[in-house]
Parts: sequence; C-alpha cells; structure tokens
Amino acid sequence: MHNSNQQLPMEKVFRDPIHNYIYVQDQVILDLINTKEFQRLRRIHQLGTTSFVFHGAEHTRFSHSLGCYEVARQIVSSFERNYPSKEANDGLWDNSERLVTLCAALLHDIGHGAYSHTFEHIFNTNHEEITTQIITDPSTEVNQVLSKISPDFPSQVASVISHDYPNPQVVQLISSQLDADRMDYLLRDSYYTGTNYGTFDLTRILRVMRPYKGGIGFQVSGVHAVEDFIVSRFQMYLQVYFHSVSRSMEVILARLLQRANTLYQSERSGNGQRSFQPHYLLPFFDNNFTLNDYLKLDDGVLNTYFLQWEDDDDPILSDLAKRFLNRIPLKSIQFSNNHEKELNELRQIVADSGFDTDYYTAVNSSYDLPYDAYDPTSSKPRTQIELIQNDGSLIELSSVSDLVRSISGKVSTDERFYFPKEMLADSNETLFSTQTEQFKNHIQNNQLI
Amino acid sequence: MHNSNQQLPMEKVFRDPIHNYIYVQDQVILDLINTKEFQRLRRIHQLGTTSFVFHGAEHTRFSHSLGCYEVARQIVSSFERNYPSKEANDGLWDNSERLVTLCAALLHDIGHGAYSHTFEHIFNTNHEEITTQIITDPSTEVNQVLSKISPDFPSQVASVISHDYPNPQVVQLISSQLDADRMDYLLRDSYYTGTNYGTFDLTRILRVMRPYKGGIGFQVSGVHAVEDFIVSRFQMYLQVYFHSVSRSMEVILARLLQRANTLYQSERSGNGQRSFQPHYLLPFFDNNFTLNDYLKLDDGVLNTYFLQWEDDDDPILSDLAKRFLNRIPLKSIQFSNNHEKELNELRQIVADSGFDTDYYTAVNSSYDLPYDAYDPTSSKPRTQIELIQNDGSLIELSSVSDLVRSISGKVSTDERFYFPKEMLADSNETLFSTQTEQFKNHIQNNQLI
Amino acid sequence: MHNSNQQLPMEKVFRDPIHNYIYVQDQVILDLINTKEFQRLRRIHQLGTTSFVFHGAEHTRFSHSLGCYEVARQIVSSFERNYPSKEANDGLWDNSERLVTLCAALLHDIGHGAYSHTFEHIFNTNHEEITTQIITDPSTEVNQVLSKISPDFPSQVASVISHDYPNPQVVQLISSQLDADRMDYLLRDSYYTGTNYGTFDLTRILRVMRPYKGGIGFQVSGVHAVEDFIVSRFQMYLQVYFHSVSRSMEVILARLLQRANTLYQSERSGNGQRSFQPHYLLPFFDNNFTLNDYLKLDDGVLNTYFLQWEDDDDPILSDLAKRFLNRIPLKSIQFSNNHEKELNELRQIVADSGFDTDYYTAVNSSYDLPYDAYDPTSSKPRTQIELIQNDGSLIELSSVSDLVRSISGKVSTDERFYFPKEMLADSNETLFSTQTEQFKNHIQNNQLI
Amino acid sequence: MHNSNQQLPMEKVFRDPIHNYIYVQDQVILDLINTKEFQRLRRIHQLGTTSFVFHGAEHTRFSHSLGCYEVARQIVSSFERNYPSKEANDGLWDNSERLVTLCAALLHDIGHGAYSHTFEHIFNTNHEEITTQIITDPSTEVNQVLSKISPDFPSQVASVISHDYPNPQVVQLISSQLDADRMDYLLRDSYYTGTNYGTFDLTRILRVMRPYKGGIGFQVSGVHAVEDFIVSRFQMYLQVYFHSVSRSMEVILARLLQRANTLYQSERSGNGQRSFQPHYLLPFFDNNFTLNDYLKLDDGVLNTYFLQWEDDDDPILSDLAKRFLNRIPLKSIQFSNNHEKELNELRQIVADSGFDTDYYTAVNSSYDLPYDAYDPTSSKPRTQIELIQNDGSLIELSSVSDLVRSISGKVSTDERFYFPKEMLADSNETLFSTQTEQFKNHIQNNQLI
Repeated sequence: MHNSNQQLPMEKVFRDPIHNYIYVQDQVILDLINTKEFQRLRRIHQLGTTSFVFHGAEHTRFSHSLGCYEVARQIVSSFERNYPSKEANDGLWDNSERLVTLCAALLHDIGHGAYSHTFEHIFNTNHEEITTQIITDPSTEVNQVLSKISPDFPSQVASVISHDYPNPQVVQLISSQLDADRMDYLLRDSYYTGTNYGTFDLTRILRVMRPYKGGIGFQVSGVHAVEDFIVSRFQMYLQVYFHSVSRSMEVILARLLQRANTLYQSERSGNGQRSFQPHYLLPFFDNNFTLNDYLKLDDGVLNTYFLQWEDDDDPILSDLAKRFLNRIPLKSIQFSNNHEKELNELRQIVADSGFDTDYYTAVNSSYDLPYDAYDPTSSKPRTQIELIQNDGSLIELSSVSDLVRSISGKVSTDERFYFPKEMLADSNETLFSTQTEQFKNHIQNNQLI
Repeated sequence: MHNSNQQLPMEKVFRDPIHNYIYVQDQVILDLINTKEFQRLRRIHQLGTTSFVFHGAEHTRFSHSLGCYEVARQIVSSFERNYPSKEANDGLWDNSERLVTLCAALLHDIGHGAYSHTFEHIFNTNHEEITTQIITDPSTEVNQVLSKISPDFPSQVASVISHDYPNPQVVQLISSQLDADRMDYLLRDSYYTGTNYGTFDLTRILRVMRPYKGGIGFQVSGVHAVEDFIVSRFQMYLQVYFHSVSRSMEVILARLLQRANTLYQSERSGNGQRSFQPHYLLPFFDNNFTLNDYLKLDDGVLNTYFLQWEDDDDPILSDLAKRFLNRIPLKSIQFSNNHEKELNELRQIVADSGFDTDYYTAVNSSYDLPYDAYDPTSSKPRTQIELIQNDGSLIELSSVSDLVRSISGKVSTDERFYFPKEMLADSNETLFSTQTEQFKNHIQNNQLI
Repeated sequence: MHNSNQQLPMEKVFRDPIHNYIYVQDQVILDLINTKEFQRLRRIHQLGTTSFVFHGAEHTRFSHSLGCYEVARQIVSSFERNYPSKEANDGLWDNSERLVTLCAALLHDIGHGAYSHTFEHIFNTNHEEITTQIITDPSTEVNQVLSKISPDFPSQVASVISHDYPNPQVVQLISSQLDADRMDYLLRDSYYTGTNYGTFDLTRILRVMRPYKGGIGFQVSGVHAVEDFIVSRFQMYLQVYFHSVSRSMEVILARLLQRANTLYQSERSGNGQRSFQPHYLLPFFDNNFTLNDYLKLDDGVLNTYFLQWEDDDDPILSDLAKRFLNRIPLKSIQFSNNHEKELNELRQIVADSGFDTDYYTAVNSSYDLPYDAYDPTSSKPRTQIELIQNDGSLIELSSVSDLVRSISGKVSTDERFYFPKEMLADSNETLFSTQTEQFKNHIQNNQLI
Repeated sequence: MHNSNQQLPMEKVFRDPIHNYIYVQDQVILDLINTKEFQRLRRIHQLGTTSFVFHGAEHTRFSHSLGCYEVARQIVSSFERNYPSKEANDGLWDNSERLVTLCAALLHDIGHGAYSHTFEHIFNTNHEEITTQIITDPSTEVNQVLSKISPDFPSQVASVISHDYPNPQVVQLISSQLDADRMDYLLRDSYYTGTNYGTFDLTRILRVMRPYKGGIGFQVSGVHAVEDFIVSRFQMYLQVYFHSVSRSMEVILARLLQRANTLYQSERSGNGQRSFQPHYLLPFFDNNFTLNDYLKLDDGVLNTYFLQWEDDDDPILSDLAKRFLNRIPLKSIQFSNNHEKELNELRQIVADSGFDTDYYTAVNSSYDLPYDAYDPTSSKPRTQIELIQNDGSLIELSSVSDLVRSISGKVSTDERFYFPKEMLADSNETLFSTQTEQFKNHIQNNQLI
C-alpha cells in the first residue's frame, strides 16, 4: 500500500520530440526528476561515441529516462482502464503496482556513468549495482524522495530493476524482450540519429499488450506489430549500435583511459609526477571510490581531463586524447574465429611501422541476441514473448513468425581488428611502404583474408 | 579563382535528421570538418540553457554548422543549374563564388564558445571577432586548410561572415533576414525541442529563391512560403528562445560566473586562497587570454568547474553552482518600463528575506526584431526581403503581406524580474511569511502591478 | 438524459493517418458510421476540385467526419477528466452532454453532396438544410439510430449543428472559430495536399482548451498555439483553398452543369431529345427532388454523366465535359473592383475569337474572414476567441496578438476573371493573333491593367 | 536516339506528399500527364477496396504513377551523375536510355481499370495487355505524344513494360524485386493507410543503387537498407494488402458483378428485361469490347451502376449492391489445405440458413512471394537482388541476410472461407439458432477446425 502518494492537483508536462508530451501526475515522480542524481543524467549521452558517426545523436540518458517512464505510464494507464484486477491472482492488473512500476521505469538507468561500458570495463564499476545503491542508499536525494512513500519503497523499486520483485508483470514491463525501456530507446535513437530503422508501431503495440498471470503478453492480432518491433531492434543493432566507426572511437577511449591508468599508477609508485591531477578520476585510479565520487563524473568531466591530457608530456596519452577529442578514428577490418595467427602478423606489421600495438591496435566484438524463446538450459534464460489467442491460450512468438524465427536464438556478432589508418596509406605517401603493402595484402572487401 | 579546389572522387555523406543527408563534394569542406576547431563545436550546445526547458534540445553547434552548410549547398546548386551567369554583372550566379560561400556557411559559427552570450557578457569576449580570428590566424587548422585554396582565401571567407565581401549575393545567402543560417536553425531547433512552430516549407523557398543584381530575392509566387518563414521565426522567438525558464537558468549562470570572477579577483589581490583552480578559466579572470585559451573552453569544461564549486567554501558560489547543475530556476514576473520604484521595493523584500540581491535577483530582457524593411535612418539598416515579379520588378515583402507588416519594424520584447522561488512560498511553509505576502501582493497574472 | 446509450464492451478503432487511431466507445457512434447515409460520404471528396492541383488531396468527407468526431472525443474526454461540473451552471463540463456532442461532430457534414458548393449554386440545394433533414427525417438510417437514444435525440443533435442548442459549450466545440471541425480539416488537408501550411500544435491546443460559463476558452499560456492555428488557417486559405487552378476547374464544372440544365430544360419544353438521360440528375433539372434523390448523387455519379456528355451532340456540353474530365483548366487574371469596363472589353475579344462567353468566361471570387472579434453590428456576429487568465478573467485573442490583429476583421479576397488559355497563344500559333495580342495587352504580372 | 525530345525551359513541379515535389523536365512527360488516358487514372483508386478498412487510403493510380516516375527520375539522375557510360557495353549508364525509362515508369499502370483484379477475373480483361495497347494504338493521345519522339518510340516504351527491352538496366529499374514501382507504392500506401509498415530508407537505397553489366545492383554497404525494404514489403502484404476485410469487400464485388453478368446474359437470351441498362458495362457482358469501351470505365462508373442495382428487382443483385456500397462485409475464417469436406459442411449450413451459397460464400486466397533468388527451374524465374562488393564481385541478397533468407522462396498465403455474418449470430437473435450453433462449432480462434 503506498498510501502516502500524492497526485498533483494539475498534471505537469514535459515537451518531448518522441511522445509529444510526457505527463507527470504524481508528486513523487516530479520530485525524483528534480533530484540531483536524476538531473546529472542530462550530462551523460545516451549513445556514448555514436554521435561521432550520427552527429544528430546528441541526446542524453535524461531524455530517455523520461521517455521510458512515459511509455510505462501509458501501458499502466491502458491496463488500469481495460484489464483491472477484480480479485487477487486473477492475472489482471492490480493498480496498487502503479507507482512502483513508474518509479522503476524512471530510475532504471540512474546508475549509468560517463561513457558507461568503456569506463566500467577499465575501472571495474558496474552501473546496475550503482543503480541499486542510488535508490537504496539513504544519502541520496532519490532515496529520500522514495522513502516518503514508505520505508521499504526504495528497496521495492530496486527489486523491480534487479528482477527480484514478486509480480512478473511489473518486472517484464520494465525489463523484458519487449519492454518500456526498449520501446523508448528504439524510437528515440532512430529520431536522433536520423535513421528510421528503429521505428515501429508503438500505438498498436500498446493496444495489444495485456497482463496475464505469468506476466505481459500480446493479443495474437498484434503479431505483426510485435514482429516489426523485433526486426526493427535487430536492424538498429546492425546499422547503428554496431557501427564500426563509433566502436573505433570507443576503442580509442578505452586505450586512452588505460594509458592514463598505467601512467598514474606508475606515478603513485613514485615514478615521476604528472603535471595535471584529474581530481575526480583519482579515486578510480586508486580503485577506491565512493558513490559520491561516482556521481561527480560525467561526459564533460572526462572530456575536460582529455583536454588537459592533450598537453601531457607522454606522447601516447597526448596523441590518444587528440584522436578522441578531434575524432580521428582507427580503421578496422572484419574477421572470424581462429585467425589469431594472421592477426599477430598484422600486429607485427603495425609494430614495425612504429606504433605501440598495446595502444594502437585492438580486437573489438559486438554481440546481440535479437530474440530468444525461453531456454531452461541457458545460463540467463529469457522471458519469451507470448501471444494470447482469443481463447486465452498462449503461443510463443517465433513459432508463428518466420522472420523472428530466422534471428531467434542466434547471436549477431561483428568482430573487428582495429589499427591506425596510416597502415592503409598509399606507397608514395609513407615511409613505411613495405609495411603498408604487406598489411593491405591481408585485406579484401574490408575483411581479413 | 580558386583553382586548387579538389572535388572528392566520391561524394561523402553525413546522416542528418533535418536534411536526411549532408553532402560533401569538396576536399576542403571535408578537411574543415576534420579540424580540431570544428570538432570542438560538438562540445557546445546550440541552444545553451534551453535544454533545461525543452529537454530534447541537446543538439550542438556542430550539427547546426553542417546543416547551414547543406542549405547553402542546395541553394548554390539550384542557382548553378537555373541561374548561371553568362557575363560579368548580369545579376546571375557566378559559380566561382561557390566555394567561398560554402566555407563561410560551414564556419559562420566557429567562434562560438561555451554558453556563448552569457560568457561574453561577463568576460567581454566576442564570438564574431573570434570567428574571424580562427579563420585568419595562421596557427589554426582551419586557416591552414583554407590557405591551401589560395593565400587570400581565408580572408575572403572571413569577409563574407563580416559582411564585407563585395558580392551581396554571397553575403545575403549566409547572413540576411532569410538566409541559410536561419533556415537551418529554425528547422533544427523545432525538431530537437519537439515543437513545430519553426517549421516552414524549405523546399518551396529553395525553389523560389533566385539571385538578382542587388542580392538574393524570391519569386513573387512564393510570397506565402516566405511569409510563413517570417511568422515561424517570430513564433519560435516567443515560444522557445524567449522562454522564461531557460532565461532563468541563464541568469543563474551569469550570477555564478560573476561570483566566481569576484572571488578569484579578490584572491589575486591576496585575499585568501580558493581550494580549486579552474585552470582554463584563469586567463579570463585575468582578462588576458589567447585564442588558444578560448578554444579550450566548452560546455563540459565549465560544468566541470561548477561541479568543483558545489563544494566551495563560499556559500553563494556553492549555492549558485548547485542551482545551475541541478536545475533549480529562479521565478520571474513580467514588467514594463518605468517600474524601477516597484522593482526596488521587491528587491528590498528579497533582501529582507535573507538573499543577496546582487546574486539572487536580476532583470532580464529579451529582444527580437522579427523583420524590418530597409530603413536608412536605422543604426543597423536591414537588407529587406525583395519579391521578384514576372516582369523583373521588385516589391518589398511587408508591402504585400498583412501578417509580416503587423510585426515588421516592431521589436518583440519580454522584460522580466527574476527572484528566488522562496518568495512565493505559502505562509505556513516559511519563516518570512510577512515578506512573502508583501511580495505576492505586487503580482497579478504573473505580472508586476 | 440519454440513459439508453450503450458503451461498447471493447472499444473499436479505425486507423487514421492524422490521429493515428480513431476510438469508438459507444454503440450509437458505431451504428451511425455503419448507416448508408454516412457510408455515402466515402464517395464525396473533401476538397472537390482541389485534387486537380494538389493530386494527393483525394480524401473524402468520410475521413474528415471521423476525424472531426475524434477531435471532439478528445476534447470531451479532457474536459471530463479536468473540468467536471459539480453543480448546475458552474461553467464546468456536464458530461451528460457528451453523446450529443460526439454525434453532432460525426454528422456535421452528412448533408454535403457531390461537388457541394458548385452544385448548390446551380441547383439551389443547401447542404445545411439537408444535414438537418437527414438527422431528423424518420426515413433515414441515421435518424433511426439516433432515435434509439431517445425520441428527441435527433432534434437535439440537429440543433447543435444549427447553433440552436442551449449550451454554448457544445455548440462552440462543433462550430466556432476554433472548433473540432476546423482542427481536423486543417491537419487533414495539409497532410493530403502535402503542404504544411495547415499544421499547428493540436496537442497543445487540446491542453489549454477549457469550458467556461459562456462557452469554450483557452488558457492564456496557450496564446501562441491559438495564434498559430489562426495564422495556419489563413495561410491554407491563400495557398490551397483559393488556388486559382482548382477554382478554374470549379468554373468549368459550374458552366458544364449550367449548360446541361439549359439543354434539358429546353428538351422538356419539347425542343429536341438528348440521347442520354442522366437518371439521378433529372429531379434536379426539374427542380423537384426528394431527400432520397439527393442521397443518390455522389462525385462518381456526376462524373459518369460527364463521361456520357463527352459524346453529346451539343459541342459546348461535350467540350466542357472533356475539359473537366481531362483537366484542361481556363486561365485567369486577378482584378480589383470597378473594372467592369475592361472586363467587358476582354469578354468582347474572347467572343471575337469564337468562344461563347456565357460558358467560356467567368468572374470568380474567393472570400474568407480569417478571424473576427465579436461585432454586434455584424449581420452574422462571430463568437470571439477568449483567453482565460490565471485569475479567471477573459481577454479577446486579437487584443494580445499582433499577428491575429493584422488579419482580424479583414476579409481575404481573390477576384479573378477566367478565360480560355487559347487567348494567351503565341501569334504564330493561332488564327486569332490580332485578338490574342489585344488580350495580352490588358495583362501585366497576371493582373488586369 | 530520341533527338526530338524537348527539355522544358523551366522545370514544372507537382506537389506530392511522398516526394515533396515531382519534377517534370521534359515536354513529353508533361504532355503524357495531360492525355485523357492518364487523367483517367485520377478516377481509379490505387488500392481498390482497401479504403473500406483503412479509410485514409483513398489515393489513386494517378498519384502513384507520378510517384513511380519521380523515383525513376531520381535514380536516372543519380546514375547520370555518378555512373555515366564512357563506351558501349561498359556496364555503366547510357543516358540516351533516360527518356524511354521515364516514360515507361510513368505509364506502367496506364492499363489498370476500375477495381482491376476483380473486374479482370470476371470479364477476362488483362491490364497488362491493355497497357501495351494504350501505348501502341494510334488512336490514343498517349501514343500520339510518344510518337512525336520517334515512330518506334511507343513500341520501345511498351517493350520496357513487357520486359522485352534489350537493356536489362532499364527493365529492372521499372520492374524487378526492388524497382521504382515498388518503392513508390510501399511509401505511398503506408502514408495513406496511416500505417508505417511500408516505410524504408529511400534516400539510402537511391545512394547505393548502381548499374552493372547485367542490370541494377546495390553496393554491399547498403545491404541493411535493401533488407529493410524486403521486410517492409513483406509486412505490408500481411498487414494491409491481405487484410481479410478488404478481401471480403472484393468477394462481394466479384459476386455482384457475377450476378449482374448472369442476369444480363439471361436477359439477352430473352428472359425478361432489366429496368436499367448499364451502358458502359454492356460490351463486357457481351464479351466484345473495344479499347475505347475499356477506357470509359472507372470506379465511379461502376459505383453508379451499383447505385442503380440497389433498386433492381432481383433480390440478390440488390442485396449485394447494398452490401458493397454500404460496407457490410462477409465474415471469414482461415483454413489450410484439404478441408474441402469441412468447407462443404459449412456451405450446407449456410444454405440451410437461407443463403444462396454461390453468392454468399467464397473461398479467397492471397499469395505473395516476398523475395526469391533466381531459380532457373521456376516457371517465372525472378531477377535476384545482387549486392556489389568493393572489388566488383556480386553476392545474392539472401545469402547474406538471415531475415531475407527466412522468407525467400516461400509463398505467403492466407486462405479464407467467407460467409454472411448472420452465421455468427447469438442464438437468441436468430431464427436459425441450430444452424448457427453448428456453424460456430467448426471455428476456433478464427480458424476452421
């Protein structure tokens, strides 16, 4: 029972390019948006380095979080009108779940940090754990707002995000193969990149979505809208999220943070002294950071340090900082398994051309599982998408859709080897023409041979 | 003669949400985009504090600069096909102007800095002068790229932007009351804010636009498309650019920079020592900065310093930094001329409530002249919009459009007094209930009475 | 009291390009849509001859009627949620008005016939009277459906459309200067013509619209959205509805029907016998038609008769039919008052070139009053648009909007003289070169001189 | 050599919702659009009975034909700029093919008649043969316009449409698995139905499309745009073109024409006399029609006859006419092969309920082959879609796309049995409750069991 929730006397709106308006009807939602932890999301781009390729994609996690909330609000409002529970366990929608659902939707990404995945990889942070911390740690404004509803409300919200909440309808609405999160980000990323691969029929999906005992399903008449959603998401992965050039910028970013880490570790061990101390990064170099340290970081803070590093004495740190800030990507080729020998040959040629291969080459792989039916033998079995027939029986999506079946259970991969574009120079433009010719002999149609 | 220009063997494209694709056909354009000065525009928002109100408006000057270039490219390409000059001074389009036009379009905003207008106001910088400097100073990559065309090419490009270029067609295409710059920003700002006030019929305007001896005119059959553009721009000013809450955030930003300036000046005079030195701002506090200092600044750098200032010992600096970063706007009321007495009364009440009025109140005025016919008595006479009739004669726009005439020559203004929202608190929520009641008595329908 | 209304157990939707979905929640609305009188609207174009110019504008009164209903439904649903009446005469929304409002919105155009305005002019029919008849005559399916709600329900619905219903909120919602009808047709006509002059911010207007004692007003914060609506409508009139070529096709249509009428009258008087009897038009030639006769006519029926007339022995009837079906418009020039003498000269030249000026020339004038404040001295005083301030007081729109004031109370006019394009032939292409030269001497910049 | 082509001094435009503008640059194209055979396409809906379901889909073959021309024009213009042939047989684009390509694109549907497929089926007409006739028969205006280019130009244009033209690039551009025709209709049908299944990235496809020796291919970098096109088309078939209710209206139309044919045949044999003679249909009842007879028919003419038949004495003819005009569809269930026995049982129950099963039941099957690689064993082998790699080698689309492979070579089918909705009545609403109960026992989840 969340009796202490207060409805706003007059609903508030936020103008939004995707949903036209985002409607806020509860005091707690408005208060959450106004916390400093949530406002911080304005300073973290939704798509990291993607805007280096799709320059329009400059939107932030703030916008997406509002959008995810709005999709959840529309779903809950449709369930409330069309499928209200009449008695416990009837498989219909219990509207006392409304607020926990909306808060979880709004806060699902609150733990994301600057250049999330790359940063996490280098410094061993975990945005999901931090999300939980932000929600449950009494020091945060988010926690203080949530606690006004009831003392255990923060942990309930956190448990929705961590999939531990008892009602599967609530969990699936926020996190499943067709959830509020994915619906917002596909539409938003399409809009801001200026591509249209991610568009699908949101209104139709909202119309056929319904609760049932085991979670959220879709009326069978909406099968094509659901299919279109899965296919759209698959195409966005291949066209946008896997783009080889934005991954190249990620590679440079990783190498840059790695180089900085190495240099500052070395400094801590008494080897020399760097002229510039990146205040907010130091706890991460020391591998000893607090939640507050984490919350001070954003894209702009990291970029500010990179601007300083452009002038560092270390040539690699300085060069990588320039490559990142001024968008000078590495080049790449595709390869498939079991080419370690050829890759090593390539690395050797790169080294012979004067590059430190620890920092100027990389293997980078993108994976996505576009859809999967429930597979009890999997390490992380997916909640499959269920279609609900007129007589109430369920059918799993891929069993009725050829398109979905063709990509179901198959991991999409794109494995690439990254190297400096200097390796592709014309013979008459380089001192290393022997090396570049050797190098280019390994490549055909942008693939390793 | 810009003989050294090199066409790209295969045109390159940038995906863009507004123009679908931006087409790059010249090596020099591609090289300019790849300069560090141009890449820096990725880190400067197009609309400053507007995204605090329209959260989707997170686009940068990088995107707009590409867009302005693309509009100019489309115009030039249409002129080249439909109105090619046959002999000198025939009033038609001389395609040897193509490259200088495109470069000027691309670079017209290159001198913009972080939170431009506010920053300029506090630190006496001028983005137009800096634009000229970036283009003409041999130390910049931009200058080096332009100089490859010819030694005087940089100064030609700069003279287009400063309105000194001899051919008025080129100048008006980049800067006039209906130019490539405005056409891109209206469409782009509409798209990213999610409003539709700024939309107009770009394709139709491109179709009716044509060169004539005195500059750029529009076939009279397109009068309604031109009228619609002027009205759309007028509405965007009232609805978006003048928005009282984004101006409130600008007010806070100005007060914050002002406070920092005062404190650091005082420190330089030997009064105390601040714990944190904002490296890239120091030359501006000293009023002694180089072009290079200017180019190191961007939105993220300033925000990083604000994050540091949140923890400063000075309570005003710290509080203003928090209000800015966490979006806690001041409130405002409208007033009209000659209310200095009433404003002073309000200021006194704010002071009585414990606020330093130098930092917590402000008068802020927005002005725009939506359109004007040429007025030789004006200090800055405008180039009026000319419609070209079938027989070649010209008519000035407002003489045939009632709508345009109604706003022509009239400055739109919105004058506001800003103050802490605490002044509007309910009596039972504040210790200063006498003051707040007095204060509220001065206000009706959001206006000063 | 309309107790007998039956809510649909599951709401039904119609996919719509403008509103995405049209939601039907009441049995009576569904039943009305399924009547033969309403289905007939599928066979009547919304914009008559406009598709001869904007070929995409092939939409029908069926689509618009659904759209007008949907806008009304959204308004009523917003009023029901945000402004529910608590006691009689409190100026808020009494939801027992819901059904009469929705039915009136759906049926407001039910009396429109084939090529409405032209047909009415020639045959003295009146689509407004016929709307009333269709709703109130017991022979129609529409009447039978409405009567199920209550015996006087049909006349209530009719009285809303004829402005006689007592509650001004209901009347203004369907018919005023900013009503459901206009909101749908501007958006729809823009979409189908492919122009964007008619677009405005429907969601924002719906948000600021509210009931007050005297009717429907708009919160003052929405003034720019309302202003934008008025300006958009003004521009659609000038750009689309007044288009000289679609009016040219209307002129030909009028002349064609006139010629047919004359010939068949003459036949009835015993002069000759036409080979083809246009069955469904005969009652109109006889000026003696029933409601049933009227309901048999649609655009396709008239076109079918025109196809027959292409082969008629009368050369004028046959020629005009061909000109209409095969889109061979007359040309036109603008003129202003008091040029009867010059027009007569032009008519004489046309006659001298071998054309019957009764059928091959015409004066055609378009008028629109884009907005007017209430004017008690006017013959048809308008209900002005009221803005509602925070303290509940009202301001009339044009008193706060320069743009609206500039077009308020001023009739937009476009007066044209139509003639065969043969009059503009080059001298060497025609036998009547003396006449064409004389004719062309009267014209400059498409205007009569 | 088409030397006699005349470029328009000033290009003309048609405003279009899909392509914004349609650009006409050649006199012959303008003249073709102005022929009566082309103008007739304004009176024939693009999607036949689909607008009974998607009411917005009221667009005509006129709009689509212009759109198909415009897509072809854009392709040709891109080929001309980027891939101009330098010598015979170099696999690049020979621009002397431009005009024949554009004319073929414009005229590819010129032979379509009223309610094409249904009409053809009943009266043994063939729109493809008629297209050839309209182009090559000297009596048509189309032929006269084309002949001005050169005497054999009409037959060249016709041979492109019939796939007999020697240059496969020209043929594939107009007619292949990814051609100008399909690109226009998918976008247009999506826009007018208000669905978005048919949207794909036209600009990107135009960018990657290129000529090669064997026809038209696509750069491999555009594989996902091509894949998205194929998937979009597949989804439009399932969602829109196969819609069970528009097919239901087609079934009624077929039965109506069949009944009329039977009755008029019987009348010709001396059995009775019908009160109304549908002039333009008589040659088709007689199976003895000329091209001119065919060109007199359009949707409106047929509807006019249906309006007459509503009042016919034959109860079946009259009832079917009403069902068609007033949109009273039959209901349907899906079934799969080998259910003739069950279908016969259903037919018997329908007959027992008083319906003539020849007219009130039907089996209707929809088929589409969404994509196929070239299959020499097929009766109509398809030209497969070729992707062109960097080194010039080709790969067939389905070999690199899982999605396309999943639907490649598989015919999509939807087989349905249609029957009066009276068969699903509630027992207490019908005199035939035994029959309806029996009938409903054969159905589960809308399928025959």
